[in-house]
Amino acid sequence: MTEPASPDLSGPHPPIAVHRPDNSATADYALSLGDDALIAAQRMGEWIAASPQLEEDVALGNIALDLLGQARSLLTYAGSLEDPPRTEDDLAYFRDEREFRSVHLVERANGGFGVAMARLLILSTYQYELYARLQAGADETLAAIAAKAVKEVDYHRDHATMWVLRLGDGTDESHQRMQAALDAEWPYVDELFDNAHIDRSLFEHGVAVDPQVLRDPWQKRIAEVVAEATLALPEVTPAVTGGRRGIHDEQMGYLIAEMQHLARSYPGATW
Amino acid sequence: MTEPASPDLSGPHPPIAVHRPDNSATADYALSLGDDALIAAQRMGEWIAASPQLEEDVALGNIALDLLGQARSLLTYAGSLEDPPRTEDDLAYFRDEREFRSVHLVERANGGFGVAMARLLILSTYQYELYARLQAGADETLAAIAAKAVKEVDYHRDHATMWVLRLGDGTDESHQRMQAALDAEWPYVDELFDNAHIDRSLFEHGVAVDPQVLRDPWQKRIAEVVAEATLALPEVTPAVTGGRRGIHDEQMGYLIAEMQHLARSYPGATW
Repeated sequence: MTEPASPDLSGPHPPIAVHRPDNSATADYALSLGDDALIAAQRMGEWIAASPQLEEDVALGNIALDLLGQARSLLTYAGSLEDPPRTEDDLAYFRDEREFRSVHLVERANGGFGVAMARLLILSTYQYELYARLQAGADETLAAIAAKAVKEVDYHRDHATMWVLRLGDGTDESHQRMQAALDAEWPYVDELFDNAHIDRSLFEHGVAVDPQVLRDPWQKRIAEVVAEATLALPEVTPAVTGGRRGIHDEQMGYLIAEMQHLARSYPGATW
Repeated sequence: MTEPASPDLSGPHPPIAVHRPDNSATADYALSLGDDALIAAQRMGEWIAASPQLEEDVALGNIALDLLGQARSLLTYAGSLEDPPRTEDDLAYFRDEREFRSVHLVERANGGFGVAMARLLILSTYQYELYARLQAGADETLAAIAAKAVKEVDYHRDHATMWVLRLGDGTDESHQRMQAALDAEWPYVDELFDNAHIDRSLFEHGVAVDPQVLRDPWQKRIAEVVAEATLALPEVTPAVTGGRRGIHDEQMGYLIAEMQHLARSYPGATW
């Protein structure tokens, strides 16, 4: 075997300096993705005991566990980039409400089953477009997490689509309820596509996906499902949110209290 | 190839009449096993949002889904034996509290995490001994359900054992709390081994496992874990129960209300 030729660095141009974005910007980005998944998993888990069919209990339980797995990977990575590093459990259980970066869409208390399916359709379609792009991103860890997650959220999207079609194109009552559910979740759509919280260097280096590029493909897919379900795209005023800046829905406090109570009572689970 | 010889039926003894137990006895038995799993799954699912570690959230979520899977198989089989037949959803959502056959051990509201692990150790050790025998039983459907379930509850038992050892043989505080948890669950042990609700013909035909034969192997295994965890076997008076006769814990009503609310509001999930 011959040695590979050394690159020619003798030309007139100096080598291009590749600046990696600093770790804290990447950590913040991973944290926002992880918090969306973590809080969505908590709310979805509540359905294990309350859905209208045992088969659906199992489906929603599995979706909750998928989201929890994504959250664990993303929080673990975010924490590893910090100095000093923090664990996934540090981040889940020992941050205060203002330090969470999740969107209001996933935080609010569960409504009826139609609301849950509208929310899942909106979230999973967004996550699908996001992860499909992030799996080709410049950060190898985020790309690997996204490559696994995109297959999972593809299934979540199929599941939510099936229900939205079935209920939207069902009885008069189910149609009305599904439309009301879509209307109720729609004010929380815009926040998903806000990119103000992401350090611009992450876009330049291909580490993060700009949420604004997801809006059109998201809208196209949702519009197709909504039309096939004989529903109408809502026209509603966006809600005042602020999850990416730590300003959360009022029901987030109760969720965090339940999630963190035990870990905070007995740090390290050592009792 | 030669035909196998026909059995000689010409002797002085008439052929032994093999009476299958009637379907309703088998259905009642399957229902009691299924209700234990169903109610345990509901309570375990509540831990997805509340355990002290994300890894543990995932573990308990998976255990809840295993139990839910067992419940679905058992309720589906029980319902198929009825005349007219009922579905798993009919049985989960459209029976009143008095028609459930679960034990009080699985019904009571969740206590602390140590209580959850004591309860899981007691339940999974019982289910392991039960399914290990039932998989060799005379009813092919129950045997097949048991053959799958025994692998799952073996893992549940390992998981609970790991925690009982870790907490029992941990700090002074964790030891005291684990002992208190074991003491709190112990009054509900006896009900597991009561066989009064099972039609005797099921034992004679090898369709059901007599819970009384499970007591010694259960006790042996539990005593080993308790000793290794430096804990003491509780000496407490059994609680007044009656789950097998439809007399349930006072907190069962709330669980059933939450579980059934949606399905009863919109029967058939058709809205």
